[in-house]
Amino acid sequence: MSRRTNKEIEQSIYQAAGKIAVKKGVEHISLRSVAEEAEMDIGVLNRRFKDDDDLIREYTKRYDFFINDLLVSVNPDEFTSPRSYFESLANVFVKQLHRNKEMQAIMRWEMSYDTALTRRSARKRDELLSEVLPQISSRISPSYGCDPNAILAVLVAGMYYIVLRENRSSFCGIVFNSKEGRKTLSEALSIIIAPFLEDSSTSSRSLD
Amino acid sequence: MSRRTNKEIEQSIYQAAGKIAVKKGVEHISLRSVAEEAEMDIGVLNRRFKDDDDLIREYTKRYDFFINDLLVSVNPDEFTSPRSYFESLANVFVKQLHRNKEMQAIMRWEMSYDTALTRRSARKRDELLSEVLPQISSRISPSYGCDPNAILAVLVAGMYYIVLRENRSSFCGIVFNSKEGRKTLSEALSIIIAPFLEDSSTSSRSLD
Repeated sequence: MSRRTNKEIEQSIYQAAGKIAVKKGVEHISLRSVAEEAEMDIGVLNRRFKDDDDLIREYTKRYDFFINDLLVSVNPDEFTSPRSYFESLANVFVKQLHRNKEMQAIMRWEMSYDTALTRRSARKRDELLSEVLPQISSRISPSYGCDPNAILAVLVAGMYYIVLRENRSSFCGIVFNSKEGRKTLSEALSIIIAPFLEDSSTSSRSLD
Repeated sequence: MSRRTNKEIEQSIYQAAGKIAVKKGVEHISLRSVAEEAEMDIGVLNRRFKDDDDLIREYTKRYDFFINDLLVSVNPDEFTSPRSYFESLANVFVKQLHRNKEMQAIMRWEMSYDTALTRRSARKRDELLSEVLPQISSRISPSYGCDPNAILAVLVAGMYYIVLRENRSSFCGIVFNSKEGRKTLSEALSIIIAPFLEDSSTSSRSLD
C-alpha cells in the first residue's frame, strides 16, 4: 500500500465512496466506511480529510460539473436546426444520467436531506448550470409570456425524476426502465420543446 | 388512554407516523418509534401490526389515492376550454403537493430505497392514476407521433422534482420556493401543455 502514489490513493478513496453512495446512499459515506470499503488504514483518510463532512463535500464536489459537462459536450453549431440540437441534447442527457449511478445517488441525497452539504451541492450545480444555460434558453422564443428557463426547468426536472425512479414502477402507465422507454422519454422531451424553438423550420404556430 | 376509541388510537398512530416521516423520513417509521412519538404503549401497536414493514405499508397506503383525488377534484366540465382546465389542474397540483409534506416524504422515500414496500407504493399509485389518466390524456392531440401519456409523464415528473427540492436551491436559475416561484411553475406547466391540446381555442398550429 505504501508504494502507491497520492493520486492512486485518492482514486481508491473516491472509488470506495462512490460504491457506498450507489449501494447505500451518499449519507453513508464516512471516513470509517470508506476506509473499510477501500481496505485502507483509517489514518490515510484522517490525514486527508478533516471529518466525515469534509470527505462527503470533496466527494460530491467531483460531480458539480456533471450537468455542465454534458451540456457543453453537445455543440449547437453542429446541427442544422434547433430541433435537431435539442433532440441530441435530450438523448445525451437521458442516456448519461441513466448510466451514471453516482450522479443519481447524489441527486437522491440532495432531495432527501436538508443540510449545509446538500444545499451546497444543489446550489453549486445550479450556479454552474446558469452560466451555460443561455446556450439553450437563447433558442427558446420569449414570446410566450414565460421565462424560457422555467420551460427548461420543467423538462430537465421531469427527466431527472423519471430516470431516478425508473426501477420502481411505470409512470403514467409507461415503463421507462428499458431502452425503448428511454427512447420514449427523450422523444417526448424534444417533442415538448419543439413549439417553443425560435426559427424552427419544422413548426409554425401562434399561441396568443 | 384506555378510554379512547379504536378510531382515535388509529388516528394517533398515523399522526405520529406522519410526523416521523416528515421529520426523519418514512424509513424511520417503526413500531417502536411510533409508540414513542405517540406516547403509547408498544403493545397497542403490536396488536395492530405484524411488524415494522406492516406499519409502514399501512401508513403509506393512506396516500395511494393522493394523486387520483387531486385529479378528480378538478372537474373538466366546469371549464370553457381545455387550456383553462389544465391551468386549474396545474395550480391545484403545485399547491397541494407543496403543502402536503407527508406525500413529499413518501415520494422521497420511494425514490431513495428500492424495496418491496417502495415498489408497492410507487406501483399502486401509478395503477390508480392510470385509471383516471384518460380524463387528461384524451385532451392531448395524438398527432405528434408521441404517446400523450409520455408528455404528461414529463410534466408531472417535472412538477414533482421541482417541488421536492424547492428548499435546496434555485433550479435553472429560478427560485421556486415562494408563492411567486410556484406561480411561475404552474404557468410554465400550462404554457407547455397548450400546444398539444385538442380543439384549443387559443392556439392553432402544425408541427409536421
